[in-house]
Amino acid sequence: MAVEQSATTGPLTPELMSRMNAWWRAANFLSVGQIYLLDNPLLREKLAIEHVKPRLLGHWGTTPGLNFLYLHLNRVINDTGSNVLFIAGPGHGAPGVVASTYLEGTYSELYPDVSRDEEGIRRLFRQFSFPGGIPSHAAPETPGSIHEGGELGYSLSHAYGAALDNPDLVVACVIGDGEAETGPLATSWHGNKFLNPASDGAVLPILHLNGYKIANPTVLARITPEELKSLMEGFGYTPVFVEGDDPELMHQAMASAFDKAFADIRAIQKAAREDGSRERPRWPMIVLKSPKGWTGPKFVDGKKTEGFWRSHQVPFSDMSKPEHLALLEEWMRSYKPEELFDADGSLKPEIASLAPDGALRMSANPHANGGALRRPLRLPDFTDYAVDVPQPGAKDGESTYIMGTFLRDVMKANLESRNFRVFGPDETASNRLQALFEVTERAWDASTIPEDEHLAHDGRVMEMLSEHMCQGWLEGYLLTGRHGLFSCYEAFIHIVDSMFNQHAKWVKSANAVEWRRPIASLNYLLTSHVWRQDHNGFSHQDPGFIDHVVNKKADIVRVYLPPDANTLLFVTDHCLKSWNRVNVIVAGKQPEPQWLDMDAAINHCTKGIGIWEWASSDAEGEPDVVMACAGDVPTLETLAAVDLLRGYFPELKIRVINVVDLMTLQSSTEHPHGLNDRDFDALFTTNKPVIFGYHGYPWLIHRLTYKRTNHHNIHVRGYVEEGSTTTPFDMVVRNRLDRFHLAMDAIERISSLGSVGVHAREELRDKLTEHARYIRAHGVDMPEVRDWRWPTEA
Amino acid sequence: MAVEQSATTGPLTPELMSRMNAWWRAANFLSVGQIYLLDNPLLREKLAIEHVKPRLLGHWGTTPGLNFLYLHLNRVINDTGSNVLFIAGPGHGAPGVVASTYLEGTYSELYPDVSRDEEGIRRLFRQFSFPGGIPSHAAPETPGSIHEGGELGYSLSHAYGAALDNPDLVVACVIGDGEAETGPLATSWHGNKFLNPASDGAVLPILHLNGYKIANPTVLARITPEELKSLMEGFGYTPVFVEGDDPELMHQAMASAFDKAFADIRAIQKAAREDGSRERPRWPMIVLKSPKGWTGPKFVDGKKTEGFWRSHQVPFSDMSKPEHLALLEEWMRSYKPEELFDADGSLKPEIASLAPDGALRMSANPHANGGALRRPLRLPDFTDYAVDVPQPGAKDGESTYIMGTFLRDVMKANLESRNFRVFGPDETASNRLQALFEVTERAWDASTIPEDEHLAHDGRVMEMLSEHMCQGWLEGYLLTGRHGLFSCYEAFIHIVDSMFNQHAKWVKSANAVEWRRPIASLNYLLTSHVWRQDHNGFSHQDPGFIDHVVNKKADIVRVYLPPDANTLLFVTDHCLKSWNRVNVIVAGKQPEPQWLDMDAAINHCTKGIGIWEWASSDAEGEPDVVMACAGDVPTLETLAAVDLLRGYFPELKIRVINVVDLMTLQSSTEHPHGLNDRDFDALFTTNKPVIFGYHGYPWLIHRLTYKRTNHHNIHVRGYVEEGSTTTPFDMVVRNRLDRFHLAMDAIERISSLGSVGVHAREELRDKLTEHARYIRAHGVDMPEVRDWRWPTEA
Ligand SMILES: Cc1ncc(C[n+]2csc(CCOP(=O)(O)OP(=O)(O)O)c2C)c(N)n1
Ligand SMILES: Cc1ncc(C[n+]2csc(CCOP(=O)(O)OP(=O)(O)O)c2C)c(N)n1
Ligand SMILES: [Mg+2]
Ligand SMILES: [Mg+2]
Repeated sequence: MAVEQSATTGPLTPELMSRMNAWWRAANFLSVGQIYLLDNPLLREKLAIEHVKPRLLGHWGTTPGLNFLYLHLNRVINDTGSNVLFIAGPGHGAPGVVASTYLEGTYSELYPDVSRDEEGIRRLFRQFSFPGGIPSHAAPETPGSIHEGGELGYSLSHAYGAALDNPDLVVACVIGDGEAETGPLATSWHGNKFLNPASDGAVLPILHLNGYKIANPTVLARITPEELKSLMEGFGYTPVFVEGDDPELMHQAMASAFDKAFADIRAIQKAAREDGSRERPRWPMIVLKSPKGWTGPKFVDGKKTEGFWRSHQVPFSDMSKPEHLALLEEWMRSYKPEELFDADGSLKPEIASLAPDGALRMSANPHANGGALRRPLRLPDFTDYAVDVPQPGAKDGESTYIMGTFLRDVMKANLESRNFRVFGPDETASNRLQALFEVTERAWDASTIPEDEHLAHDGRVMEMLSEHMCQGWLEGYLLTGRHGLFSCYEAFIHIVDSMFNQHAKWVKSANAVEWRRPIASLNYLLTSHVWRQDHNGFSHQDPGFIDHVVNKKADIVRVYLPPDANTLLFVTDHCLKSWNRVNVIVAGKQPEPQWLDMDAAINHCTKGIGIWEWASSDAEGEPDVVMACAGDVPTLETLAAVDLLRGYFPELKIRVINVVDLMTLQSSTEHPHGLNDRDFDALFTTNKPVIFGYHGYPWLIHRLTYKRTNHHNIHVRGYVEEGSTTTPFDMVVRNRLDRFHLAMDAIERISSLGSVGVHAREELRDKLTEHARYIRAHGVDMPEVRDWRWPTEA
Repeated sequence: MAVEQSATTGPLTPELMSRMNAWWRAANFLSVGQIYLLDNPLLREKLAIEHVKPRLLGHWGTTPGLNFLYLHLNRVINDTGSNVLFIAGPGHGAPGVVASTYLEGTYSELYPDVSRDEEGIRRLFRQFSFPGGIPSHAAPETPGSIHEGGELGYSLSHAYGAALDNPDLVVACVIGDGEAETGPLATSWHGNKFLNPASDGAVLPILHLNGYKIANPTVLARITPEELKSLMEGFGYTPVFVEGDDPELMHQAMASAFDKAFADIRAIQKAAREDGSRERPRWPMIVLKSPKGWTGPKFVDGKKTEGFWRSHQVPFSDMSKPEHLALLEEWMRSYKPEELFDADGSLKPEIASLAPDGALRMSANPHANGGALRRPLRLPDFTDYAVDVPQPGAKDGESTYIMGTFLRDVMKANLESRNFRVFGPDETASNRLQALFEVTERAWDASTIPEDEHLAHDGRVMEMLSEHMCQGWLEGYLLTGRHGLFSCYEAFIHIVDSMFNQHAKWVKSANAVEWRRPIASLNYLLTSHVWRQDHNGFSHQDPGFIDHVVNKKADIVRVYLPPDANTLLFVTDHCLKSWNRVNVIVAGKQPEPQWLDMDAAINHCTKGIGIWEWASSDAEGEPDVVMACAGDVPTLETLAAVDLLRGYFPELKIRVINVVDLMTLQSSTEHPHGLNDRDFDALFTTNKPVIFGYHGYPWLIHRLTYKRTNHHNIHVRGYVEEGSTTTPFDMVVRNRLDRFHLAMDAIERISSLGSVGVHAREELRDKLTEHARYIRAHGVDMPEVRDWRWPTEA
């Protein structure tokens, strides 16, 4: 099982090994050069201080290991013709990844100014972490990368996402031993229980056990080898250990390990694909135990550096010290650049020939520019799923259930292209998307019992109780050119706040990279939302993901709050067609009144915001008050408030505005969906009170509208962090978003009502007392609340 | 090693076993009653529909297992006198936890209306998940709980946090097999590498392998037993398996397992404490494999329920069906309540006597009401650490380094009380808090090598590359009455957004529980912040945690942006003294100009916001412009802008305002630290332009100030999601927060300047071009930017 340093023979001929080692030296040389040099790239002159960058930025420690793995993967690709995608968990090893892609030629193909000659190498060095140059991580600018690796923890879930439905692909995923301590990474080892060897590709995890993180040893490097083996076997893998620091021995050991791993992968796939095996395979994984900063300076200023955490970043700086300059020169010359590059600075042909051909180069793997592979989903006509709404509010429906019927047929229509999946942490059915199970199952490769329902090796619904895993899978799936939807309890989507950040940043940066093609949008359905946590209570109430999302670049984020099923259908269809966005859809799963028939829904959603004429009474002129709402529950409460107001004051001119696309509220100068000021003023007036019932934290509405003329008249009710396990109506009451409070708010602010309103307000206040007493006595909401319906027209 | 169902003999006498089983039946009976019944609590009448709650809410599936474990822990406590804290990972099993604490008597001691008689049981049932009653989870209202268990994943990190520095304590931590799939839980198994058997308590993880989550089997239940064993051994534990469903066999097996586990724990502790062993122990852990919804209905409507996911929540509802009512009655009567409770409804004495005495009851464990144990930290005088600032801006200092010297002495002063720790994901030194290592080390119980630095079994700095673990440890530590600080890269603190949510919600709810005493505040130091990610770039830039935090209740959250070292010292001291808060401190770690001497810092921070007279030129009257700033980098840029403006327009009246306590901006009606409108207007004027340089997303300033008179004149610059690996000054330029943009903004808005300003603006614009060219050529900022200093007074 263990392929260790003691293996003196191996698959590599001396000649091949020597060329491979030359490649590795070249990659390491180019990596150090990126971190340190401005000029004199091939050290054709004696190194002088003016050749060195004034600010030394970057990470050396992880780099030689990445270069070593990259090289050896190329060897296997050459031998086997495998289609391999490379993921560098420690994306801070970009000097290495960039160097390898440069050696492969891809870099110069995409960035011709970084040519394959001395001048190109000078540019390669100079641009790294330099103003106007390239980032320090494996960012979208990096050929072959789908993983930035800045925030650690997501490499393996990305890898599993990329492998789904790509039966030919082997995703080689390097995991930092520090990264392996993060929660998201720690659970993503279980990805192997959701990977179908027959129809998915393979993931080859490579634990990069260089022993250290920034300033500490890593946990996995300081447990016994038996524990580490046990851990990997416990996660269901067959580990192969490659351990040592002598390059020759390590080349042989690594080559054997990859040979074995790739052979095992092929054997597993053959068993599943040709022999029909249904056993969960014990996929191989590799542990590479090698020194951090391998081949770098052993000591710096008398302190251990190679094989220690001190080599994590820039192993030494302060280049005004002559001994540092000398150390750098000695270090770089130890790679013997003169043996690696020709006179013009191009890589010697016998070394360059180690690169695989064309698209077999990992830096040119088409899956890494997934947008180029993306094909639009086949979408059935969403209007076919319309709920019949003969009259606004006359009928109830469960919005997400209806959406599920549409998703079912989206799934069905794309079964053959195998490019659509739905993700969720064990909540697909709870979120009422169960219609999906009419056409597919949950992916499950672990064992089953006869009673199990909807589990299958090739299921297309991915459920694991890890929001991190769902997000990571989906990102990996989208980045390699496919489509998907993540449904989640609204409160717990905060678990992936930081993953969303990183993805949004990736999309923004990728937009600026000429050769990257757009990927499908990341679609969230947030349901079981703040207002309807009947079984759960306070800990499950948090609508703040929207606030989090709108801090990201306006051209990337969209937030939709469809108030009922037909609007949700429109929005779903729209989001599934879009690209390079993050779409957040918030919708209820409980039975709720349906307001708009399909024609009305299409009209309304196309605008994103609009007056509901049938609910308004200001046709002939300016309204006395604007009642605005966004979200299903606020819409219900607002309409009930309007009904109350009409009862008290039949002459009152009320305008009802519903917002589906939250971004319409923002100024058109700040968001592409924003209304211009003229249109906004026309809707919200310039001087009338606006009572705004909002799904989430009320301050967001102010943040979006603070520049609007009538802003000082906008009075928002929303979630103010009050709640417990109580009745649905009590939840809105506690946060003053209920019909009674909204009606009181309106009465208080409509100047024309003057003192006439006082009596009505008293009555409404009494209602609140009645409510409080009633629910404590009966445990359910008052019939007049529960059974309230929008009045049907006479 | 495995204690299995086949064990027919065991430590329990038949008599004891029969009483224990009666307790378990009582706990299960009371659990079902809480979920289902309004009345007729002891089934003294035939069950009728009006005895049943109209809305059935809660979770049954996990409950019988929790009750079983609780009971058996009591047995071990009785036998050994152990001090045990109980953590229910699946906090949705609150019906069980509450039932057990009721059986122990604690519940009635804390809530006398829920008395130990029939009427008390009626109230116990009625209040559960009922309006005005108690939440459905193990919330702060629950005696003995420090863990709500709503958002799954944090039980084990809480447990490890609670065990630190509590050498007598055994934290029994039940982990749901679903919960175990979450990332945070998956990595927290490694807590055993940071626990010192000599001076910390023990954690006994109990994996509750009931096979299912909401609607799926769990991964750990569907791998082979060998894999599970291997996994637990790989994590460094010695697992003991208890498996089966026959109560008698299971009681014996469970009792043996706990006997063994507690004996092993004591042996490990003895080896470390008396025999001086320095080996990392293989702590025991238990796997309880039992049916989900154990003892519940086997089938409901013909579908498998006991031992299946269908028993997760309320196993059946729609009680208008007579067969459901009958099923409920049969189920509840199967526990034979008549054998459990006396005529008055009190628990039979021979059963009640199974409860441990007084504070040994887990529901009365003092550590679970940690506030009552909390002792204030001994704090050295922070002014002793002051940086000498002879003149504003004359000297540079590294704020967090200075803070570190203060923290070092805080650590030292409390070494003996062992109630202060510092937490961070491998960044304590990177964040410049290295002075701590002069008095303590990093906690490390895994293996070491001679070159290692600052690792020790009893180190008090907790570093693991998991923000989740750091947060979970700290929460567990605080909730059990101790103090701490979490230092983190600003961008990556979003990783724990949702954990922060849950903690803030806990603190808010606990505030409303009369018997809970306040706990120490959760203090964050966010450094390596958005503006100074020199080595990293875009993925490491996100100042949005502040936005996230301010959505929580105003009386809980505080945000501080000290601009230099002395203000940071004041703020740190203040935060370490506070309780029941979440304090967010954002401060730089790079060398930066120091503005205030200690006297000025104390004055300024006491107000939280104020005019910097020495930088202002509006002494004699109203200013022409207000230049406001919050955060170290914005303060620097604002002052540099003021210097530029003075150069161009010596007569200009400029007022400089600095904000340390961000909450002062909010209205006094919304936040206790908020300025009242009069004071705000006095500072910001009612009609003069305000140019506000802010550390984070600019919209937050608008959200905080939208109600202020002069709001429409407030023009905010902050991070607008632009960045890469570039120079520090280029970062502010890209986001238009630099001195040149700020000065241009001011000139544009000061009406009195009229067209005179145009020339200056042109010059400033040229500066930006010069900057862009310079950094691309040299890779560093222009000397006039780098070397700028606030002009010393003549
Ligand atoms: C989630 C997260 N927390 C903290 C950091 C800061 N950080 C950058 S590199 C690093 C150490 C990484 O160690 P490892 O994964 O072992 O990588 P390698 O040793 O290969 O560099 C840390 C903690 C980060 N990038 N992401
Ligand atoms: C982070 C998170 N995601 C999703 C949920 C929704 N949820 C509530 S209970 C549950 C299943 C829990 O299963 P397990 O941990 O096995 O508990 P048990 O079987 O003992 O009820 C889920 C997914 C949650 N509470 N927390
Ligand atoms: Mg490492
Ligand atoms: Mg379970």
